[in-house]
Amino acid sequence: MTNKSPTAAVLIIGNEILSGSTQDLNVAFLGKRLALRGIVLREVRIVRDEEDAIVSAVNALRSAHTYVFTTGGIGPTHDDITAESVAKAFGVKCEIHPEARRLMEEGYKKIGGEMNDARLRMARIPPGGELIICDATIVPSFFIGNVYVLAGVPKYMQAQFLSVEDTLARGDAVLSFAVRCNQREGDIAFALEDIQNRFKNVDIGSYPHYGQTPALSFILRSTDKSALEEAVKNVAEMVRERGEEPLLQAQS
Amino acid sequence: MTNKSPTAAVLIIGNEILSGSTQDLNVAFLGKRLALRGIVLREVRIVRDEEDAIVSAVNALRSAHTYVFTTGGIGPTHDDITAESVAKAFGVKCEIHPEARRLMEEGYKKIGGEMNDARLRMARIPPGGELIICDATIVPSFFIGNVYVLAGVPKYMQAQFLSVEDTLARGDAVLSFAVRCNQREGDIAFALEDIQNRFKNVDIGSYPHYGQTPALSFILRSTDKSALEEAVKNVAEMVRERGEEPLLQAQS
Repeated sequence: MTNKSPTAAVLIIGNEILSGSTQDLNVAFLGKRLALRGIVLREVRIVRDEEDAIVSAVNALRSAHTYVFTTGGIGPTHDDITAESVAKAFGVKCEIHPEARRLMEEGYKKIGGEMNDARLRMARIPPGGELIICDATIVPSFFIGNVYVLAGVPKYMQAQFLSVEDTLARGDAVLSFAVRCNQREGDIAFALEDIQNRFKNVDIGSYPHYGQTPALSFILRSTDKSALEEAVKNVAEMVRERGEEPLLQAQS
Repeated sequence: MTNKSPTAAVLIIGNEILSGSTQDLNVAFLGKRLALRGIVLREVRIVRDEEDAIVSAVNALRSAHTYVFTTGGIGPTHDDITAESVAKAFGVKCEIHPEARRLMEEGYKKIGGEMNDARLRMARIPPGGELIICDATIVPSFFIGNVYVLAGVPKYMQAQFLSVEDTLARGDAVLSFAVRCNQREGDIAFALEDIQNRFKNVDIGSYPHYGQTPALSFILRSTDKSALEEAVKNVAEMVRERGEEPLLQAQS
């Protein structure tokens, strides 16, 4: 795929994901939305709610990718240490952000909640950070440099991401096409590899679905529409040569 | 928590997870099973099907943790590069493993499949690797050093993990308890932090469930049963002081 495309990493912060008590749903959402914008999600890390782990992951990822999106750890309780840890990765300390405070005071007044000292913690943002404001939540989030700090709860994370999406760099959109059939991987592996070798700028993945029909999906992705279409045609033909009519589905 | 506990990392290999076309379910399974054995899952990485990315993640994780479990990329197609990449991380090259080959030939004979050259690729294992054999699949997987190479498909990954589980080191089992209520995080944050500060060897996490009842879960984890019980009692009392009877649930 094109090397010009912006890249992204996602950093998921939360013991609850690692312990298996909460199922992550944020990677799939971000992966899809970023691909539509032509931003390649290259890496995800999931770390515990521990400052050292967060700081070193933020620093490794922000120097390697165009964007880093963190999720989780931004509430008012003692285990919410994302903002302070991101600040530390940038060598600064969080401070109360006056506009964040004002928005929260206004918001809590409206819903009859109390803007107490615990909630005021959520207005603490590293100097240089800019607010991420959306309708879904009273509490603004922030980005600093290329690091976007988002909620862990999917509903809020999604709203926050969508509110900044239009400001992100655009790459060539990754187009995606599925060819589904009931072949077995071991029977078509070499023929598929031949096609992959002829279409270097198309990523061809092969995914078996055991016990299901269709039993095998080829997912083809490329930023080059005509190469993608040609590769899809070749994969479909390969399946037809084995006496089966494949199912073709444009994915995006 | 105790520092004596063995630790683990999971490395998920697959473009399909990063693109959002497949939802990962393996982290939750491994997180739960490892915790039951007293092994702390400290980190997860998800990388693309690219050799450099896999090699550098394997090397970073295997030196930092007692165990590394990889999932995905072990089929017969060109995009299945996990075995070769793990071998490269160990500075060796995969070779046909005679026993793996024999097991596969036997297995395919039984189900009337053909043991062709593409399938033979799956018998390629780094020298020094030992087979992981389970009833769920004809194709053995392997481990080398502290790196366990497992399937991406949850059914096979789980069977492979369960077949090696008893050989893994045991740590002190992490006990877990949930206290559920309808308090709002911002109202109890300081009281909860006080309890956390008094119970250093108990991890207390606070997880809001917006729009649900109960609206808030505190998850307490520790290897120290009596400290855990005392901390749970304190959290429950904090909720009662606010006029609500909490729901208490042992998790493991």
